[in-house]
Amino acid sequence: MEFTVKQIAGLLGGEIEGDENLKVNQLAKIEEGKAGAISFLSNLKYEPYLYTTEASAVIIDKRFEPRQAIKTTLIRVDNSYTAFTQLLQVYEQILKGNKQGIEQPSYLGENSKVGEGLYLGAFAYVGKNCTIGQNVKIYPQAYIGDNVQIGDNCVIHSGVKIYNNSIIGKNCVFFANAVIGSDGFGFAPQTDGSYKTIPQLGNVVIEDNVSIGAGATVDCATMGSTIIRQGVKIDNLVQVGHNVEIGKHTVIAAQVGIAGSTKIGECCTIGGQAGFGGHIYVANKTKVGGQSGVNRTWEKEGLSLNGTPAIELQDSLRALAVFRKLPLLEKRVYELEKKNQEDKS
Amino acid sequence: MEFTVKQIAGLLGGEIEGDENLKVNQLAKIEEGKAGAISFLSNLKYEPYLYTTEASAVIIDKRFEPRQAIKTTLIRVDNSYTAFTQLLQVYEQILKGNKQGIEQPSYLGENSKVGEGLYLGAFAYVGKNCTIGQNVKIYPQAYIGDNVQIGDNCVIHSGVKIYNNSIIGKNCVFFANAVIGSDGFGFAPQTDGSYKTIPQLGNVVIEDNVSIGAGATVDCATMGSTIIRQGVKIDNLVQVGHNVEIGKHTVIAAQVGIAGSTKIGECCTIGGQAGFGGHIYVANKTKVGGQSGVNRTWEKEGLSLNGTPAIELQDSLRALAVFRKLPLLEKRVYELEKKNQEDKS
Amino acid sequence: MEFTVKQIAGLLGGEIEGDENLKVNQLAKIEEGKAGAISFLSNLKYEPYLYTTEASAVIIDKRFEPRQAIKTTLIRVDNSYTAFTQLLQVYEQILKGNKQGIEQPSYLGENSKVGEGLYLGAFAYVGKNCTIGQNVKIYPQAYIGDNVQIGDNCVIHSGVKIYNNSIIGKNCVFFANAVIGSDGFGFAPQTDGSYKTIPQLGNVVIEDNVSIGAGATVDCATMGSTIIRQGVKIDNLVQVGHNVEIGKHTVIAAQVGIAGSTKIGECCTIGGQAGFGGHIYVANKTKVGGQSGVNRTWEKEGLSLNGTPAIELQDSLRALAVFRKLPLLEKRVYELEKKNQEDKS
Repeated sequence: MEFTVKQIAGLLGGEIEGDENLKVNQLAKIEEGKAGAISFLSNLKYEPYLYTTEASAVIIDKRFEPRQAIKTTLIRVDNSYTAFTQLLQVYEQILKGNKQGIEQPSYLGENSKVGEGLYLGAFAYVGKNCTIGQNVKIYPQAYIGDNVQIGDNCVIHSGVKIYNNSIIGKNCVFFANAVIGSDGFGFAPQTDGSYKTIPQLGNVVIEDNVSIGAGATVDCATMGSTIIRQGVKIDNLVQVGHNVEIGKHTVIAAQVGIAGSTKIGECCTIGGQAGFGGHIYVANKTKVGGQSGVNRTWEKEGLSLNGTPAIELQDSLRALAVFRKLPLLEKRVYELEKKNQEDKS
Repeated sequence: MEFTVKQIAGLLGGEIEGDENLKVNQLAKIEEGKAGAISFLSNLKYEPYLYTTEASAVIIDKRFEPRQAIKTTLIRVDNSYTAFTQLLQVYEQILKGNKQGIEQPSYLGENSKVGEGLYLGAFAYVGKNCTIGQNVKIYPQAYIGDNVQIGDNCVIHSGVKIYNNSIIGKNCVFFANAVIGSDGFGFAPQTDGSYKTIPQLGNVVIEDNVSIGAGATVDCATMGSTIIRQGVKIDNLVQVGHNVEIGKHTVIAAQVGIAGSTKIGECCTIGGQAGFGGHIYVANKTKVGGQSGVNRTWEKEGLSLNGTPAIELQDSLRALAVFRKLPLLEKRVYELEKKNQEDKS
Repeated sequence: MEFTVKQIAGLLGGEIEGDENLKVNQLAKIEEGKAGAISFLSNLKYEPYLYTTEASAVIIDKRFEPRQAIKTTLIRVDNSYTAFTQLLQVYEQILKGNKQGIEQPSYLGENSKVGEGLYLGAFAYVGKNCTIGQNVKIYPQAYIGDNVQIGDNCVIHSGVKIYNNSIIGKNCVFFANAVIGSDGFGFAPQTDGSYKTIPQLGNVVIEDNVSIGAGATVDCATMGSTIIRQGVKIDNLVQVGHNVEIGKHTVIAAQVGIAGSTKIGECCTIGGQAGFGGHIYVANKTKVGGQSGVNRTWEKEGLSLNGTPAIELQDSLRALAVFRKLPLLEKRVYELEKKNQEDKS
């Protein structure tokens, strides 16, 4: 795929400074740009690369005033970041294609309805009584149980497993091998030391614009619903326990674990490998550091938490600063004791 | 699905106080009960909800004496918790169904024998020389290698992968995308810095009544067997290394990792995201806190461990209590030093 | 499968001390050897077992001089460890077989080329424009997208998902349900609190002799490539973020997480459940302890790191030693304060 600088400037409504007939065939970061690549400059931290980049063309803000000579061709736009994102999206469509149609063999259960523009890959399975919206893509070897609802424009990647009775909103993307709605971890201890399985009869409800990463698992509720609100972004290998609720626009990095019945607020940011105990609540806009272990409710909005067990970030950093110097602190105490002893004698 | 209170009381052998003709169509927690729902009260911590619940009916112990007026209909039974669990199980059968038969296309290798009541979903694969017990359910896109034995009443969910030579007991449930018997992580360092793969020739043996969560992985032994004893419950995304042995009725929460050749005792309780080093032993009835890192053998039964590296819980909590106050402790030491200096001068 | 000691000695070029007609039918560790098993002694720590083992035969170094009577038959070779590994590999071939051919139904997209010796399992999917090398094994229900290159002798286990445009070298093994090339976790915050997805247009490049564990996930780059160099060994359930680069012969234990754009050097050893922040660099030959959290660049080669946040191992161990005694340290400070107070009065 090759375009001229003129074609790209036309697409973005930009003005060219340099050679409009240059051809570009890939996108690159400005610090990695080579001949044939187009890049962008938005964050001025990267300005020095503008003067040295090998990229054939760079998209840049109209207002930008260079402080040195520039050898690359410029495309000037109102907002270079937005323009580059627009270019990425066009490129994505070309690169990832727009699969449609039904490959065989695939399985579509009785009484299941599918919308227009469906892609149903080979070896994909849709159970009975499902309702699949428009322009949904179900990749090969995905599994959708019975009585599942999936909204318009969802993308269900290869190997994703969605259990019975799940309800999925619009524009959701589930990456390969994610599991939605498997049983919550509920076992009643018996007097002989064994455990009896507590039936898990609830479901999973996922609202619009949710992204769930590869290999992540979301358990169904014991009763009621495990709920993931609109716009939530969940990274790979995250575990969401039964009856959890995650507030809208919360972002959860890879390998986080959330135990049963815990409620995470809106617009939270959770670092990788963090863990949450069960039956607790974390308020809106909370930030949790990577690997932290949150073991109690935090009701105040907007706190930053860190450590295991998690405490407020500033307290955690101060304690960690002393932790590193503990051998020295112990020695200082020892010196004081020795001095005391000497004074006595 | 709708039942009258009379029908449910009949099923549970209970006595009705209130309207026996009320219709209920869902199960709910007492604090979430709405019109049309049936709930239960067992733990008296939840008694206040009995007087305010919107649930149409509540299952309750015969002996219970209310302290306020109750507007909902009661079904009195000997043990409300047991009765409600019974109801859950009936509901589960109705909800999840009882799949049987062989969907096409599916793959059954030569010399493999299957019992009565089999469900073999579309795109499921069973290799050669397998022995599959009675009433086994193998969901779509599950994979079972060669020479695998699976006992009666097992449920193998969609996308589960079971490698060659695995031996599975009765009544086991493996949730979506769990992997049983992939190679242990064994590599011999070579003089040039590279690694040579050590062939992994053992298998996995899983006894009766074991539950393995979605996306969990259990490696085969290098030689001999990785063994999971009866009644063990393993949550999602847990990693069990090669040659590990887990004692009966041990419960392991999500995202725990157990390195190779480690032995976990019976009736242990392991918190989420905990990790175990290799070649160690943890005695029966040990409790391990979430995110703890167990790096040595603990031979005494019934200990509670916590922290990284894990120490006894009480010691861990006491040390953590001081940890949080470290900046203050350092200041106290500084004050003492200053005082000492002043006294000197 | 049964062999005589004479047959095995012939295979290994070894000399027999004892009964050459003994039959053996399994491999075992020397401490677990039973009649019919063949074992080996290399590490002299295990020498005592040589005098008590029930194994029918033991492979041992030519130079070894026993200090007690030995009842088992010996096969003496130049290097017992190497010889036993050779035996393991022969046994592996017999045990795991050498699948070839195309099972039906399977899916091979247009313009995709496959080499000789291919195994393509039932329900496996290969997209269009792929190039698959010689002797590649693609197990049932594996998925390979469009424009993927896979080198000779690769083994793609059941349920593995490889996204479009991935480039895989020779002799790689990907275990069940691993995911290669799903989208990196990139979202641009919007003024209303929501996030917009940043298109992920790069790919994954994996060099020769790489092993990737069951359920592990490797994200594609935003632009450019996520790169895993030759000989890297990655265990189960590891997460590798977008634009990460892992140097050759680095070994990564289970459940490790590496955030986006981080670069791990060559010949590193990473313990289980360790985590790496984004955009950092760790030099060659670094060792990272299990559960450690590496949050900054470490440019010096060969360091051992430990703890969260990770510091040098020796510093970490010294601080942890005092940490455990913190309640006592606090008490010592209290005693000093009390003494000070008494002296004053």
